[in-house]
Amino acid sequence: MASNRLLTGASVRKASRNGSHKTTTAGLAPSYLQANLIILPSRYATDFRLLCARNPVPCPLLAESKTSGSWDAVKSWVDGLSGDEIISRFDIRRDAPKYMVYRDSKLVRFQCDDILNEWSEDHVAFFIGCSFSFESALADAELPPRHSVLRRNVPMYRTKISLCPAGVFTSGTYVVSMRPYRRSEIEAVRNITRPFTATHGEPLAWGWDAIQQLGITDIDQPEWGDTPLTLDGRPLGHSEGNEEEIPVFWGCGVTPQEAVMRAGLQGTIMAHAPGHMLVLDCRDWDIMEKPAEGMEEAEERM
Amino acid sequence: MASNRLLTGASVRKASRNGSHKTTTAGLAPSYLQANLIILPSRYATDFRLLCARNPVPCPLLAESKTSGSWDAVKSWVDGLSGDEIISRFDIRRDAPKYMVYRDSKLVRFQCDDILNEWSEDHVAFFIGCSFSFESALADAELPPRHSVLRRNVPMYRTKISLCPAGVFTSGTYVVSMRPYRRSEIEAVRNITRPFTATHGEPLAWGWDAIQQLGITDIDQPEWGDTPLTLDGRPLGHSEGNEEEIPVFWGCGVTPQEAVMRAGLQGTIMAHAPGHMLVLDCRDWDIMEKPAEGMEEAEERM
Repeated sequence: MASNRLLTGASVRKASRNGSHKTTTAGLAPSYLQANLIILPSRYATDFRLLCARNPVPCPLLAESKTSGSWDAVKSWVDGLSGDEIISRFDIRRDAPKYMVYRDSKLVRFQCDDILNEWSEDHVAFFIGCSFSFESALADAELPPRHSVLRRNVPMYRTKISLCPAGVFTSGTYVVSMRPYRRSEIEAVRNITRPFTATHGEPLAWGWDAIQQLGITDIDQPEWGDTPLTLDGRPLGHSEGNEEEIPVFWGCGVTPQEAVMRAGLQGTIMAHAPGHMLVLDCRDWDIMEKPAEGMEEAEERM
Repeated sequence: MASNRLLTGASVRKASRNGSHKTTTAGLAPSYLQANLIILPSRYATDFRLLCARNPVPCPLLAESKTSGSWDAVKSWVDGLSGDEIISRFDIRRDAPKYMVYRDSKLVRFQCDDILNEWSEDHVAFFIGCSFSFESALADAELPPRHSVLRRNVPMYRTKISLCPAGVFTSGTYVVSMRPYRRSEIEAVRNITRPFTATHGEPLAWGWDAIQQLGITDIDQPEWGDTPLTLDGRPLGHSEGNEEEIPVFWGCGVTPQEAVMRAGLQGTIMAHAPGHMLVLDCRDWDIMEKPAEGMEEAEERM
């Protein structure tokens, strides 16, 4: 099965469902939104929804199961998009290439192909935005993320920045992704990613000082993804003090998954395997903030 | 004019407008929402709106001028409430008891009675939620905030927790308010304030460790408001290590005002004077999160 044929969300989902695609979704179905998936017992749904509402930058909630137990229909949390426009004709239990299953906060299945046996009528699936979306916008502006140029994974780090607590979710901290840029490129990079409000938007912090500010232990040892490199292949941290190129940090969709894991929840919790996202039917431009529309909508409320 | 006659938002606004009420609005018009006011040149409006969207806990945006220059009509940012339901028959330029005026980021008028001369067709007023709302709910549950029992102001602190940046607003940090409670009361206090999502919601942090976590210099020297006291009148910080009573911190509506001041903006910027809020027509219960309604609304989008 040639992955380069997987040009739409529907085709990636079909290939994942029938077992012909089992690896990362990075680079597949260009411009189609990819979603982080978190599946919780319904008693935690209200608190999780509030966690996302209070922390929209690292936890941008796109959609959730239409009702408890719905694995084939979602309701939208994105203004101007219906649930069916976000994703339709799908099976949450089989359409990501790989899943993780936790029971009473312990990992019990690693990178399994489906969650048909674990899904229950009491489960609610949440779809969280992913920064793949703005990466193609950066590439289009001739500011491609370093890790994609070098065909590596984006580095992701735990920080010491607390999330705003919500119900049972009290001990979460921001997870951030990092892409190095030249100091002279920062304003362009901020401007390009700013409208992607449903997929983390503009950066949280930038510069060498930001490493300490965020409480990152070692820029060369990310908790997820690959060590960041300079263009000539050295670890980025070794170029620290280099005023030309600085680390730039964005909110990361691993954040809600971490927050769920730290909450010590009981019962069966499921997620996609990192990098193995659920690919949606909506496109990058469908979820970009259009300030004029936001204004009109507010006016309609008058 | 007896302040105890000011039982509605409209009566407080009228008394402020005709000059018969010129002091704090604390305790006036019980159950009517009070709003922090920030008035910006229109070129900063998009970035400010985004700042609120990215930081909804300290910066809960309730409403804004209906169009640039509107001082007598707002559009709502609260689901299920129209602009007119939030506030009608008012004059933003005269209806707060006192104002502050800044020009090119320098304070030029302190606690003035109105801003009739400064307001222009290019100005946009933003209304930000205020924690007065949940204080009456706490009192109703026999958990009255300490400062109100002692008839003092709530203490407010600068923190080192960065806001998520938005456009020109890059250097803001959370401002928090603090109310001490017994450790055994924390879950009740969290539950009571949680539904007030438009007025900061549940606490951000609690416990003696939170002081350092937030980067607060001295709990007994708040940047705004009064030194917090124990019930027997000692500074709260002197009881540190007291496991019985701990500081509890909430997001504070001074946050956006601080973020605006730190952004070094050009032009004329106005705000209410701290404690001298604009009192609205909607009530506490109008803005409380009703999870069931949130669900229905999401379903309607399907």
